[in-house]
Amino acid sequence: MKDDKITQLMSHQAIRRLPHYLKYLKNLDTASNDRISAAVMAADLRLYEGLVRKDLAFVSSVSGKPRVGFKIDDLISGIEHFLGYDMPNRAVLAGAGHLGKALLCYRGFESYKLEIVAAFDVAEKLIGSEICGKEVFPLEKARDLCPRLNVRIGIITAPAAVAQEVCDILVDAGVLAVWNFAPAQLSVPRGILVQNENMAESLAILSNHLTEKRR
Amino acid sequence: MKDDKITQLMSHQAIRRLPHYLKYLKNLDTASNDRISAAVMAADLRLYEGLVRKDLAFVSSVSGKPRVGFKIDDLISGIEHFLGYDMPNRAVLAGAGHLGKALLCYRGFESYKLEIVAAFDVAEKLIGSEICGKEVFPLEKARDLCPRLNVRIGIITAPAAVAQEVCDILVDAGVLAVWNFAPAQLSVPRGILVQNENMAESLAILSNHLTEKRR
Repeated sequence: MKDDKITQLMSHQAIRRLPHYLKYLKNLDTASNDRISAAVMAADLRLYEGLVRKDLAFVSSVSGKPRVGFKIDDLISGIEHFLGYDMPNRAVLAGAGHLGKALLCYRGFESYKLEIVAAFDVAEKLIGSEICGKEVFPLEKARDLCPRLNVRIGIITAPAAVAQEVCDILVDAGVLAVWNFAPAQLSVPRGILVQNENMAESLAILSNHLTEKRR
Repeated sequence: MKDDKITQLMSHQAIRRLPHYLKYLKNLDTASNDRISAAVMAADLRLYEGLVRKDLAFVSSVSGKPRVGFKIDDLISGIEHFLGYDMPNRAVLAGAGHLGKALLCYRGFESYKLEIVAAFDVAEKLIGSEICGKEVFPLEKARDLCPRLNVRIGIITAPAAVAQEVCDILVDAGVLAVWNFAPAQLSVPRGILVQNENMAESLAILSNHLTEKRR
């Protein structure tokens, strides 16, 4: 593996490309050919060759050979290791409304080794219930439960007005990364990552596109 | 208003900042002061002043005055007009599973003038039912219903395996923009916008962050 100081320099934009590489590589037919070149990958994925070459150099332990390229299996395990998909991450979810339920029941997280182990809410009628096999606990139990369950990720699907308060509780409970679905800007201590899913931003792009079409 | 050719040049990154400006401007207390400068906005939002100044020049019909800045009301209506929030957009949603239900029931879209008017699915048990006041129709009704309802946006929450097929049907039914929540790359004709909500990309960033923490 590469030196950690180097791997840390990979940009978020580059990291965002890795799931697409993984999906592409896993769909290749390795029976006929177990190698792939950066040039072929770039052409298939409609990306610049130099970009793909640089990304692969980051995540691969061995260099691609001229003309024959990279071993596909090596690339897959290299990317999975880089992304931490070879070590499961445990998450809790705070806010078991419609969106929270959708995420609790979503099966697609398994392939990314993300496991939502419990949910939190403040609504009496939800507490104690199970949503797709995950129990809903009162929010004040987070500080106790998260360290015990070795939880590292906090998913916030609570309303925007209480998102910061919920975030503070989860950070206090030891989560190292917050996946924020609430339309709120969150403040966190240094070293904690906040990844925002901002639907308002996407809506702005959609709406602007339609406005341009009308003009 | 600015020349259309100029407004079209605004980058997606810049458009993504506009909802944050809107939210900020709407929260300002205009009773004491009805103007704001790019410098103050930039400082409050922790952005570069030059960037904010450039964005505001795009969306504002009048220039900010030296020292006193922009009229807050003008900026709000300028951004809303630029984003098309002054004209409602109608959408349909295809795939009424957990995520589909979450979006059908989400009330936050109203402030972006996005109205989901109907849902489509292929599951017999869902067809004819209502989810948060929106009826679920069989997918094959899309070609008939979308033009009649003047639908411009298609939201795809169907499984990845059928997402392209669903997308083709919606595009054929006349939608001009696709908001894609399925983890699939969609092909569309030129002039149709696809906005992907890619949770795999976000998960990659979260997981990589935790991996770095472990090293």
